[in-house]
Amino acid sequence: MTAPIKRHLLAPGPTPVPERVALAMARPALYHRAPEFAEVLLDCVAKLRLLFKTAEPVVLLSASATGGMEAAVANLLGPGDAAVVVRGGKFGERWGDLCSAYGVPFEAIDVEWGRSVDPASVDAALAKRPDAKALLVTASETSTGVRHPVEALGPICRARGALLVVDGVTAVGCFDVPMDAWGIDCMVVGSQKALMLPPGLTAVALSARAREALERSKHPRYYFDLRKELKNHEKGQTAFTPATSLVVGLREALTMIEEEGLDNVFARHARLAHATREGARALGLELFADRPTPACTAIRVPAGVDGSALVKRIRERWGVTIAGGQDRLKGKIIRLAHLGWAAEFDTLIALAAVELGLADLGHPVQPGAGVGAAETALRAS
Amino acid sequence: MTAPIKRHLLAPGPTPVPERVALAMARPALYHRAPEFAEVLLDCVAKLRLLFKTAEPVVLLSASATGGMEAAVANLLGPGDAAVVVRGGKFGERWGDLCSAYGVPFEAIDVEWGRSVDPASVDAALAKRPDAKALLVTASETSTGVRHPVEALGPICRARGALLVVDGVTAVGCFDVPMDAWGIDCMVVGSQKALMLPPGLTAVALSARAREALERSKHPRYYFDLRKELKNHEKGQTAFTPATSLVVGLREALTMIEEEGLDNVFARHARLAHATREGARALGLELFADRPTPACTAIRVPAGVDGSALVKRIRERWGVTIAGGQDRLKGKIIRLAHLGWAAEFDTLIALAAVELGLADLGHPVQPGAGVGAAETALRAS
Repeated sequence: MTAPIKRHLLAPGPTPVPERVALAMARPALYHRAPEFAEVLLDCVAKLRLLFKTAEPVVLLSASATGGMEAAVANLLGPGDAAVVVRGGKFGERWGDLCSAYGVPFEAIDVEWGRSVDPASVDAALAKRPDAKALLVTASETSTGVRHPVEALGPICRARGALLVVDGVTAVGCFDVPMDAWGIDCMVVGSQKALMLPPGLTAVALSARAREALERSKHPRYYFDLRKELKNHEKGQTAFTPATSLVVGLREALTMIEEEGLDNVFARHARLAHATREGARALGLELFADRPTPACTAIRVPAGVDGSALVKRIRERWGVTIAGGQDRLKGKIIRLAHLGWAAEFDTLIALAAVELGLADLGHPVQPGAGVGAAETALRAS
Repeated sequence: MTAPIKRHLLAPGPTPVPERVALAMARPALYHRAPEFAEVLLDCVAKLRLLFKTAEPVVLLSASATGGMEAAVANLLGPGDAAVVVRGGKFGERWGDLCSAYGVPFEAIDVEWGRSVDPASVDAALAKRPDAKALLVTASETSTGVRHPVEALGPICRARGALLVVDGVTAVGCFDVPMDAWGIDCMVVGSQKALMLPPGLTAVALSARAREALERSKHPRYYFDLRKELKNHEKGQTAFTPATSLVVGLREALTMIEEEGLDNVFARHARLAHATREGARALGLELFADRPTPACTAIRVPAGVDGSALVKRIRERWGVTIAGGQDRLKGKIIRLAHLGWAAEFDTLIALAAVELGLADLGHPVQPGAGVGAAETALRAS
């Protein structure tokens, strides 16, 4: 007989759902054409605009965030337009894959995985490709743990006549990405990250320049037609049946963020990220990202340890789900999330699990060293 | 001070979510790349195949059912292919709108709203349009309450070399639509109808002929790329983050259907539909559909009554949400659902609410006459 395992989810999305949000979603179903639902949708949009720091409209689509990214490519780029894509991880590559799927030619800026993009190389790529109508970039590259300097890209895009289109999936609600102040034209977020919901909803915000571009595109689009959704959202409606329970949950989650205060939410993420990194260093582990995102910490797996075996061991024996590396980073890094519904003890659990897993695999580790360093960091901040 | 209103949702989707399913979805979040989730997904697919009565693969997409319909059009029809579309309600029109969005020329069979399609007219349309690679039809036209004779269309499509593509959104799980036996090549279902879930998931089943067509299409597709999803589903994976909580809920809902027994589920829907219609007749009301679907009952609003005001009154004063008519039927019909998590007393509540609402609007009605007739029908069956 084995004892039941009490599980902990510490991967960078889907993230844990707060009980309050889960209970809101368990309420009796709402009819999406009734006024009660319109009120919920309009409230979500209003709260999302505060979160995006934008005066521009935001629309909700019932799809995971890749659907929101596809909506951006299909609606903002005409068949004759080109793009510049920042690649430097799995999600940067997704922008390129989407362009390929739509036949949009693009110039790729191939950043080494684990490094952030140099704004000068963005300017150079846009200069080289004057037919580029958009720069597609990832604010928080979850696959490598890197935060790209989106704050520096608005003026560059404006000067080169390109729209700045940002994958804000693990960024929005985790750190400050003020859309209007930074000159972002289109920003996409998914529900299952800092928004503390299950996956299945994506939000897309559009500047006036982006809304003009919608009218020019000739790509086929129906479910992801942003023109239609902008019009419907004005009345609190959606073109097609929305994921109602997730929308109800979104309102609850956004209310929680409002109650905590946006600056406090950002500070919490930064504090947990800092403590996690202090803990990793104390274990003699090397951080992977040159400019780490507050969403998760990517750590190099020490020489002689199989990273995939480590992740598996931690999950199966210790009941803690952390993420490994993807694609070319498979087995080479682990990723500890401190994103969304995350607090001090989640950070300590993640570090303890890494200590236990490494010890199980025969790697020398001083039990508690990482956790202790993180505790110190938490107490000091 | 007013007493709180205890609400009832009796619109044809979203339908009420059983407590058991709501609680399953409220469980702690699962990581979609962990084996636990793969097992859930594979189990859902296996159970969906039993429900579709098919040996063919079924894929889940995180979108509402329009996304599944779009996947069918984008993946099965090449830019050079034509289609034949059965229109006779809002959802038939949607097939046509999707073809237009993708530049697919189509022959429309415009059936009068409230009537079902004549199979001979399908054969004639396919003969007139020999470049048609698919017939797009709605099994249960929720907007008019009509059930189209899909059972007669397989041999016609086969003889004319066209794929039979069926919107099964309010059909699958409500009445028998045996995909393989009827020669259906592609069938789409949404989560928020007979599957008793909130909206946000859609399932698409594909015959061998349909899977061949996937390779020929040149339409841009990324989020809805069925080739990619077929491959991923073999390992219990999805190409993009799936709506995990809905997938967990789907397993619970499909388990409930399994426990009740598919034949019993169909018999329950038929029995509630019959009782609803007996009730409506007893109130002197006229049924709208010539060949009614077991999913919902469309009833003509009596002369002199404003149907929109009736729906509003029933919702606001009596807390019961029924549906009105859409588009050209606005104000002219009401629709009472008996779909999904529906039982005897739901049917009686719907009829009682109609009685109360009609009386409030000054229409002569004998209180209890409809409910009584429905009770009699329920006791006799």
